[in-house]
Amino acid sequence: MGDTMETKNILIKNATILNPKSAEKDNIESFKGDLLIENDKIAEISKKNEELINSKGVEKIIDGKNKILMPGLINTHTHISMNLLRGLADDMALDEWLNNHIWPTEAGLNGEYCYDGALLAITEMIKSGTTTFNDMYFFMEDVAKAVNESGIRGCLSYGMIDFGDEEKRENEFKENIKLIKNCNDTAEGRIKTFFGPHATFTASKELLERVRYEANKYNVGIHIHMNETKKEIEDVKEATGKLPFEYLEDIGFLNSDVLAAHGVWLSKEEIEIIKKRDVKISHNPCSNMKLASGIAPVQELLSKNVCVGLGTDSVASNNNLDMFEEMKFASLLQKVNNMNPESLNSNQTIKMATINGANALNLEKEVGSIEIGKKADLILIDNKSVNLNPMSEKISSNLVYAANGSNVNTTICNGKILMEDKKLITLNESKIIEKANKSIKELKEIREESK
Amino acid sequence: MGDTMETKNILIKNATILNPKSAEKDNIESFKGDLLIENDKIAEISKKNEELINSKGVEKIIDGKNKILMPGLINTHTHISMNLLRGLADDMALDEWLNNHIWPTEAGLNGEYCYDGALLAITEMIKSGTTTFNDMYFFMEDVAKAVNESGIRGCLSYGMIDFGDEEKRENEFKENIKLIKNCNDTAEGRIKTFFGPHATFTASKELLERVRYEANKYNVGIHIHMNETKKEIEDVKEATGKLPFEYLEDIGFLNSDVLAAHGVWLSKEEIEIIKKRDVKISHNPCSNMKLASGIAPVQELLSKNVCVGLGTDSVASNNNLDMFEEMKFASLLQKVNNMNPESLNSNQTIKMATINGANALNLEKEVGSIEIGKKADLILIDNKSVNLNPMSEKISSNLVYAANGSNVNTTICNGKILMEDKKLITLNESKIIEKANKSIKELKEIREESK
Repeated sequence: MGDTMETKNILIKNATILNPKSAEKDNIESFKGDLLIENDKIAEISKKNEELINSKGVEKIIDGKNKILMPGLINTHTHISMNLLRGLADDMALDEWLNNHIWPTEAGLNGEYCYDGALLAITEMIKSGTTTFNDMYFFMEDVAKAVNESGIRGCLSYGMIDFGDEEKRENEFKENIKLIKNCNDTAEGRIKTFFGPHATFTASKELLERVRYEANKYNVGIHIHMNETKKEIEDVKEATGKLPFEYLEDIGFLNSDVLAAHGVWLSKEEIEIIKKRDVKISHNPCSNMKLASGIAPVQELLSKNVCVGLGTDSVASNNNLDMFEEMKFASLLQKVNNMNPESLNSNQTIKMATINGANALNLEKEVGSIEIGKKADLILIDNKSVNLNPMSEKISSNLVYAANGSNVNTTICNGKILMEDKKLITLNESKIIEKANKSIKELKEIREESK
Repeated sequence: MGDTMETKNILIKNATILNPKSAEKDNIESFKGDLLIENDKIAEISKKNEELINSKGVEKIIDGKNKILMPGLINTHTHISMNLLRGLADDMALDEWLNNHIWPTEAGLNGEYCYDGALLAITEMIKSGTTTFNDMYFFMEDVAKAVNESGIRGCLSYGMIDFGDEEKRENEFKENIKLIKNCNDTAEGRIKTFFGPHATFTASKELLERVRYEANKYNVGIHIHMNETKKEIEDVKEATGKLPFEYLEDIGFLNSDVLAAHGVWLSKEEIEIIKKRDVKISHNPCSNMKLASGIAPVQELLSKNVCVGLGTDSVASNNNLDMFEEMKFASLLQKVNNMNPESLNSNQTIKMATINGANALNLEKEVGSIEIGKKADLILIDNKSVNLNPMSEKISSNLVYAANGSNVNTTICNGKILMEDKKLITLNESKIIEKANKSIKELKEIREESK
């Protein structure tokens, strides 16, 4: 790690600070001020009319003039190693997409390929302002290695699938528990581990019940796909006689440590269960649109105070990891679906991508807002970009509707600068890109050979 | 204009050339090759296995290695001076938005403000790869001035509204005809003028009938808002007893020179009329979603061989002019609305943003594809960007689903380089941004004073 990674105290001066602190209200606080980072934490915040921060002992000063300072974005549902599969197959029915393209290519994956894909994804995330992501895939210790080296924050789970096979189930638990034992709270605390039961139609009742038991035992969260497609609902109903969330409620699986990705097709009764058990939802509008899965009832969930975070899903169904773009999709999709331009306003949307995401991952005491004592996971947006002008009085409007990830100028995670003035500090972008292209080429060759 | 604006012959070498030539087929041709620009036109195209282009007499060579060369994007519906109003008001019902925010601010507009807004918009368009736009607003000779100076291509119409008032109507014709007489085919042919009757509910029958007569007389096209909201359909039905396109068909208004923006709410009968009269549609997904207007039946229109181009509308309802983002919105919205992931595939979407747009503006002999003899309106996309890797075999997939406007490296219009390696040649970005911020500040003061 270079010198900048070691910087202990950083003072950001004269920034326009946007703070999505409250998940309750529509307002977002913003003011001009300074912010002091000591080690990995936010140590002081000063509004310009208050006493200035003493810059004694500060090793690095960042000029925040004409920049918006906000919490790093939190991507609550990813499969980042799949960045290798970007553009592999698009515009086709789910069955063809999975059976003929995604799965045959994934069959050739190993730890090294997953590491290459993870680095490609992390490069994209750091450049577009994401500082925390929540990932489920295979070879997760290789993903952990990429998280450790890059300086980003990641919640990692192993995607557990048994289809009722006991031997496979044992192996899945071995893998996920090994990940927890080897990686939880490593990389200066930047890595948290989760259990990752894939979904109710790919994981057996026995697997799901044991996940609940082990999650309590290891005190880690659970990341699961839920209610993504109509077909899934029908399949689960046929297999269990119940809707997916009713089924999970019956077997005692649900709790506030469960993050359910997608939540597109939800009955009124299931929304009540989600609320009662404080289950968190990761909303993935681009993926749901691109795969033609459907439109999640986000406005309804928020109106019932369900915690909804935002996620990109993998680039195979997106096809990027730009959380600014995802915010615009989320807001505009709710507006047109509800035929109401007031739906999911820009303040609510920014909260989804920050403090709600932190809440969804049980990280609300650490990240997701700008507060003294929280981890310094922060990004600076360049207010001089032509697409962000005129500078609006309502900053959130420009950020959600006009910005994209390329407007991010500086990314800080855990008090360390990962990108400054668009220059990556911890990663070698061109090498990572070159390696990723080599890896997907090899994966395609492996796929052809095995035909 | 600087030296580069005067460059006569440009050779682009070793590019990956993407050519959305055919509007009929789903395939998009792409190959590695060179392209020679002579003056304002594409003079030669060479595939690598064919004879190389003789670089004798070439004054400028652009290295196209690791770059995608494609036609400049065509934005078929804008109000670019409204760039001054970006972020002014969002997340509210149409009535409140127009009556309390947009219209009171627009009341203070003059030619200088419209010029400032136009330059801000053109800067954004050149940076994000748009080389032609189709604009309707006020003070259009000032917009023409910005088009002339910047080097972009523009179709300009004056937004005519009479609400049945004869005196107002006379004035609107004076304004639009003055624009046609003063500006049509000026700026080395980069400016075309249109008539701009605002809509069927704001322009009287007399105005619409005379527009048809004058458009024939002056041999210019017509740009009109059509069938944007449900309320509009109801209002027109109440006033005329007919649906909007039926009404226009009855008064003999429709012809292949009519570009109808939006076309969200269309009856089967109206789609038949559109097809019969070869009326062109500009699809504006972001605006239709953000204002909760509805979802246009794009896939259905395309399946009936109606020409559908793509547009951003103004930034007041978008809030940017990024045609790459607009392509992604267009495709994903059709997929989820039709519950079919095969809807509006990436090839079709790129065609909407290029050759269909050219067709919609009656510019298909000049721009919208890469063909010898066409105007050199071209952009280069940086294939080394992290969000465009791995480099997909299907280039259109990366461009529509993963790219955004910041991936544009070089923009050429009418054979002149307007941006090279992300550096603007004809415009001073920081001055334009500064002036735009000053202008909107003054406009807000004027609005407050007039209260």
